[in-house]
Amino acid sequence: MTHKAYSNCRIAVDAMGGDYAPHNVIKGAIDAIKMDPSIELYFVGQEEAILKELNKIEPQFNKENIIHASEVIDMCDNPTIAVRKTKTDSSIVVGVNMVRDKKADAFISAGNTGAVMTASTLNIGRIKGVGRPTIGAQFPSTKGGCFVYDVGASVDSKPQHILEYAIMGSIFVKEIMGIENPTVGLLSVGEEDSKGNDTTLKALQLLKEADINFIGNVEGRDILTGKADIVVCDGFVGNIMLKFAESVLTLLKIKIRDFADGGLLNKIKVLLMKGTLKRILKDFDSDAHGGVPLMGVKGISIIGHGSSSPLGIRNMILRAKEMHEKELIKKIEESLGKDEKK
Amino acid sequence: MTHKAYSNCRIAVDAMGGDYAPHNVIKGAIDAIKMDPSIELYFVGQEEAILKELNKIEPQFNKENIIHASEVIDMCDNPTIAVRKTKTDSSIVVGVNMVRDKKADAFISAGNTGAVMTASTLNIGRIKGVGRPTIGAQFPSTKGGCFVYDVGASVDSKPQHILEYAIMGSIFVKEIMGIENPTVGLLSVGEEDSKGNDTTLKALQLLKEADINFIGNVEGRDILTGKADIVVCDGFVGNIMLKFAESVLTLLKIKIRDFADGGLLNKIKVLLMKGTLKRILKDFDSDAHGGVPLMGVKGISIIGHGSSSPLGIRNMILRAKEMHEKELIKKIEESLGKDEKK
Repeated sequence: MTHKAYSNCRIAVDAMGGDYAPHNVIKGAIDAIKMDPSIELYFVGQEEAILKELNKIEPQFNKENIIHASEVIDMCDNPTIAVRKTKTDSSIVVGVNMVRDKKADAFISAGNTGAVMTASTLNIGRIKGVGRPTIGAQFPSTKGGCFVYDVGASVDSKPQHILEYAIMGSIFVKEIMGIENPTVGLLSVGEEDSKGNDTTLKALQLLKEADINFIGNVEGRDILTGKADIVVCDGFVGNIMLKFAESVLTLLKIKIRDFADGGLLNKIKVLLMKGTLKRILKDFDSDAHGGVPLMGVKGISIIGHGSSSPLGIRNMILRAKEMHEKELIKKIEESLGKDEKK
Repeated sequence: MTHKAYSNCRIAVDAMGGDYAPHNVIKGAIDAIKMDPSIELYFVGQEEAILKELNKIEPQFNKENIIHASEVIDMCDNPTIAVRKTKTDSSIVVGVNMVRDKKADAFISAGNTGAVMTASTLNIGRIKGVGRPTIGAQFPSTKGGCFVYDVGASVDSKPQHILEYAIMGSIFVKEIMGIENPTVGLLSVGEEDSKGNDTTLKALQLLKEADINFIGNVEGRDILTGKADIVVCDGFVGNIMLKFAESVLTLLKIKIRDFADGGLLNKIKVLLMKGTLKRILKDFDSDAHGGVPLMGVKGISIIGHGSSSPLGIRNMILRAKEMHEKELIKKIEESLGKDEKK
């Protein structure tokens, strides 16, 4: 099976990334090209492991599109040391370098987030006008979803970085989510302009002057209630909030299990409501969104959750293709070049 | 009805505080003294409004224990301006001053959080060794609960303040929750000592040297999973996380309602699971805990949620009495005097 004849988007996939690699990655990626055969897929990683999995899932896959990388950066590795020194022949570094060398249009990985960020920033390089690249996360909300930037690409974000998050986030949400003129809120401890910490008070002024649809400060409660399409904050705050949010479902599941353990009647009650609960909670499932792009680098690099399912991987690949088709990098370059302040 | 004969704890209650004042406050407070007649209750606020409500709920209440305060600080008032200048005869200022003047052993309010904090800090004063008072919040967890300090008494908390939160929180959780040697975690973006922002990296060193049961960095997900009894963080982060957590239930309710609106069958499904859901989610209900004390001031001052129910108010009063009986202020004074570093 080769797609070269009608290919328009070449995507390098980190076959070794994630808790269930290579199985989930290869399964999800094959699903993606079944949905969209115009994608040309490259599996990057240990050839033998990839071949073994491919033989089970899609034996006809073009073997030329397996790019061998002898090393694997795991979740415990120090990103900077692994990327720069100890694991330069890893699937993450080799895959990122394919984007750098224009051999791929995008790279996707469910592996070590810090390593993907570091490799992408160092090897592909930052867009002019971007002080710090950012990763966002899509939170569920009453209005469909709220994108929060930054959720951990960096800590101690400066006011200027928060402004950049807002500009890049606005472009992403407009182009990919199809929301014309998306609203942007600044995460703070109160709605009034006087509320905030040193960083947000200064960021507020920059955001007010920027060419975005800024609605002022928003609070922690406003994310899920959908007050803004985009919420910007320091990466330390965003990361803690994201991990907290992810744990809500965990606690809920434990509470439900404890309740079910309380007797046969309880068990029956839980069984009866399971399907309904699943439908109600489906928006809380991170797999549906398919990873978050690292924005601010001169290439498409999408980072997925370590526990990504095949569905999550598939959605990451489809999103990468969409970002490529819609020329998101070019649009960010144009916009940040224009707004550059320093 | 007078309780003076066997009184051992005098509690001043802000009758005007909260979204449903004075009704919820008076109803909850009367419930508290029915449970524990040894409490001597003072209602602080506009006499006429208090009397009107008391006549409905408990006409025999001793009218001498109504302390008239002509003004009301509402949720929109600027705390500092209201407390210092424009509303010095408000229920909050008059109630706090009763503690300052040793006419009451504790003050409780479901009113403007900032105003209670400001009045308590300015008028009662800080405990020696406390740079910044703190308010904590009890989050649900798989192990029963996790206390997070600070959730908004201040922003840009310094490392030394975070250390103080840990010491005061440890005393509260030990004395009031009965947990011997409670564990303390520092909220950060990774477990490793190297992960964090400028503030947490410095706070980590102070916490390691302190006479508490410190377990190192914890992440956003570790709060609900109960990894530590106490989690300390900058007030900006804690406040955002608290408000985010409170909104989870709101979103869940909206999702359930939307599902029920999908047809008669869905409506029946939701009706059938309502009771079970309520039991599962009861730990997420802030009323159960009855407010959070402002710690670090030389008196007991407990702040409740604006939407506090009578149950919430009752629990705040019972908690205030417990704090008084267990001499929490004295214990904090002793401990922080000992550990004082600057």
